[in-house]
Amino acid sequence: MNSNNGINSSNNSFWQNLFAPNSVALIGASNTPGTWGFNIMWRLLASERRIYPVNPNVSEVMGKPAYRRLTDIPDSIDLAVIVVRASLVSAVLQECIQKGVNAAVVISSGFSETGEDGRKLEAEMMETARRGGIRIIGPNTMGHADTSSNVSTLAWTKEIPPGPVALIAQSGNLGNRIVLQGIDLGIGFSKFVCSGNEADLHFEDYLEYLGQDEDTRIITAYIEGLREGRRFFQLAREITVKKPIIAIKAGGTKEAARAARSHTGALSGSEAVYNAAFRQAGVIRVGGDDELNDVALALLHQPLPRGNRIGILAIGGGLGVVATEACEREGLVIAPLASVTIEKLNALLPPRWPHANPVDLVGIGPTVDNSIILSSLWALMEDENIDAVLLQAPVAIGTNYLSNTFHFNAEEIKVFDDGQKQNLDMLRKRAAEYGKPVLVVTPVNDPETNAYLLREKIPVFTSPHRAARVLHHLTWYRGYLDANQS
Amino acid sequence: MNSNNGINSSNNSFWQNLFAPNSVALIGASNTPGTWGFNIMWRLLASERRIYPVNPNVSEVMGKPAYRRLTDIPDSIDLAVIVVRASLVSAVLQECIQKGVNAAVVISSGFSETGEDGRKLEAEMMETARRGGIRIIGPNTMGHADTSSNVSTLAWTKEIPPGPVALIAQSGNLGNRIVLQGIDLGIGFSKFVCSGNEADLHFEDYLEYLGQDEDTRIITAYIEGLREGRRFFQLAREITVKKPIIAIKAGGTKEAARAARSHTGALSGSEAVYNAAFRQAGVIRVGGDDELNDVALALLHQPLPRGNRIGILAIGGGLGVVATEACEREGLVIAPLASVTIEKLNALLPPRWPHANPVDLVGIGPTVDNSIILSSLWALMEDENIDAVLLQAPVAIGTNYLSNTFHFNAEEIKVFDDGQKQNLDMLRKRAAEYGKPVLVVTPVNDPETNAYLLREKIPVFTSPHRAARVLHHLTWYRGYLDANQS
Repeated sequence: MNSNNGINSSNNSFWQNLFAPNSVALIGASNTPGTWGFNIMWRLLASERRIYPVNPNVSEVMGKPAYRRLTDIPDSIDLAVIVVRASLVSAVLQECIQKGVNAAVVISSGFSETGEDGRKLEAEMMETARRGGIRIIGPNTMGHADTSSNVSTLAWTKEIPPGPVALIAQSGNLGNRIVLQGIDLGIGFSKFVCSGNEADLHFEDYLEYLGQDEDTRIITAYIEGLREGRRFFQLAREITVKKPIIAIKAGGTKEAARAARSHTGALSGSEAVYNAAFRQAGVIRVGGDDELNDVALALLHQPLPRGNRIGILAIGGGLGVVATEACEREGLVIAPLASVTIEKLNALLPPRWPHANPVDLVGIGPTVDNSIILSSLWALMEDENIDAVLLQAPVAIGTNYLSNTFHFNAEEIKVFDDGQKQNLDMLRKRAAEYGKPVLVVTPVNDPETNAYLLREKIPVFTSPHRAARVLHHLTWYRGYLDANQS
Repeated sequence: MNSNNGINSSNNSFWQNLFAPNSVALIGASNTPGTWGFNIMWRLLASERRIYPVNPNVSEVMGKPAYRRLTDIPDSIDLAVIVVRASLVSAVLQECIQKGVNAAVVISSGFSETGEDGRKLEAEMMETARRGGIRIIGPNTMGHADTSSNVSTLAWTKEIPPGPVALIAQSGNLGNRIVLQGIDLGIGFSKFVCSGNEADLHFEDYLEYLGQDEDTRIITAYIEGLREGRRFFQLAREITVKKPIIAIKAGGTKEAARAARSHTGALSGSEAVYNAAFRQAGVIRVGGDDELNDVALALLHQPLPRGNRIGILAIGGGLGVVATEACEREGLVIAPLASVTIEKLNALLPPRWPHANPVDLVGIGPTVDNSIILSSLWALMEDENIDAVLLQAPVAIGTNYLSNTFHFNAEEIKVFDDGQKQNLDMLRKRAAEYGKPVLVVTPVNDPETNAYLLREKIPVFTSPHRAARVLHHLTWYRGYLDANQS
């Protein structure tokens, strides 16, 4: 390393510099709370790497000496994060060239999303970048993160837990909401990129990169418009046979398409074309962020069903009726029970059980005795007519609920809780063994019980409609794989 | 009161005895945790009234002396709650006749829902009840509650906060889940009835009663099948011009209809007939419990919109795109902005704002400066082209979020929080004044912020799809009222 001119001696690929930089300069770093330059500095300092604030107007930022210019930094820089105003960005990139920086995140907005003047600034910026071989996330991006290398330029997102789900978002706010919802469901993320205006790196570049990324097992996306439709299609076809892609495609209605054009300049394209392309490429298309996270949750923790024949187990007739309707509306089949299953359930349930699917655990009420529920569940999972189970019965109960509703004391709670942990282990084991997913819909709405199940890696949904929608997607994706995997 | 024979001297109507009894006997009360007789006893004892356990096998239940038979109780009894097994219920009703009891809740199951033998038991029970003039909730019910008189026979529901929403449920478990979800949204309930097999009192009886109930401002319902369709239609037409009815009608698909028959014996009837009847009677038909509570939440806290022209204000282009699409798919109109509104927004927002609806608060990012958001919101509310606003911007921020993401200290949080409370007061005031509802969709998914808004009586939704669905229902209902209110 040459500390005099600070020319970057690393031969890292720009991908590595974007997602695992050893040193980062923040151009526009600030001591003013509430600014991008403040929040991103604060975020960058949360990691162990070398961080250099650049700001000609202050002597230090958050205790780190500030440099007037990027080229003043006496160290090599892997990644430049730029938050200065749009008209200054090209000059900063010029310094990046002098400094040998090949990777930048341009947070600054005021480019092509704003009209003619902005388009000119963006073209000028890209000319500089191309000349210097600098690859860019953005401009007009809310940042990016990698939980493996612990880098984050996300000013407004809380700390993201690591995990196998990646997200590419053509809207920072939408991406942010998806990630925060996912965190609430116990979903961990590998990488998160807000692609911004995609002046340089396109959605398709990130998709290709994540397709090869070993930390990423599931790719999720928020899409307004694709710049390289054909390339997207080919990449998606290659990737989806190895890892699922779950995507929201927005801008499918008239005014929404107009709004998307003014947002990122993206042409959102014909609904029919997108639908056909996604279907043929094995992309799971979801309607919104809730649904995206629901599908990711199921894919993370449960196997794909072999078919669309659903067994429903419910602790009450009404729950069974509603779940049945939700499944039928999603094109799923309410499986007729095998006679051996009926015999098994005859031995478990009172004579008045309906002897058919949905299986109503008649009259046992919300109960602390899980054994009948579990034995009935195993009977359904063993039924060769059934590909997946939608379970609306308390396979686990949060400890406050046990105390408040069942009036258990601490010792009783301990014994019961040990038992239910074992039951959930067995549920996960059998689901994997039989290749039959079990999706839980909470019969009561107890947030503590839901959180408990999520901690134990059991997908849980607050309504049968959400679970049925997920089963629809899992079934469709399995059918795609069966037809397309070699 | 004659304490020798204990004949009931009260002339209370059976409705008053069901929902506001002075004295209750629990036949089948138990000291065994996890049983209905235990949980209901515990629930009944939470109120101040006179409670008498009946159980021939024990001397006391939860510290109260137990009676061998109902007729042994040396007090008048307004309400009999019966949890003994089905074959014993008629004999208990016989004692009710001797004792002059005219109101009973029959929790016991094993009646018509179980087949031929059960049907005979139910007929026998009803013969006794009719002979004695006893009116019955159930059998096969999970109970009922009135938060004004503080009576509850709900074994498995946590304490329900009082409020103006009533629920009639043809499934105890579904009703339970609806109430628990509602509680999480800050919704309070007046009355909750699980109607069970409706051997005596029908759904229509409860509907008529709640239509006249002064504690009830909104009626919600879970319906599998109506026994008196014509009466329902006439009642609903009369009620909905005064108070909204929000209903789930389940069993609309083939297998779900079959499951409903085996659940409560209800014929779920033709989808087309129900749809037409609901529409003509002004009943808001929702698809599930989430949607039911979403609509109730909006009706509780916001006025009805005069039309379907929506203004969208979003702190980011992507949020605006998705909200626009959600609204269009619900048949709502994305209102063109009046020129005066565009002028007002020109004075507030950077020049690059899109000058159209959806209004993107370009580039201000998640922010602590609410003033631009609020001024923009007032501009949209004042626009005569706009009937309702869907707001995806932080009008309020939870205090933990302020501390963790904005790095505020305690004093800063206090000042900020006082300000945002005033802003929310103004929002509610202006919504009422203009007659324009404002529905908030959280731009970030922060449960603390959502809870904060709900405490401040601002309807908040976790996705624009849910908010758009609610706006669809509000708009439709307002149109119904305009056409049908005299």
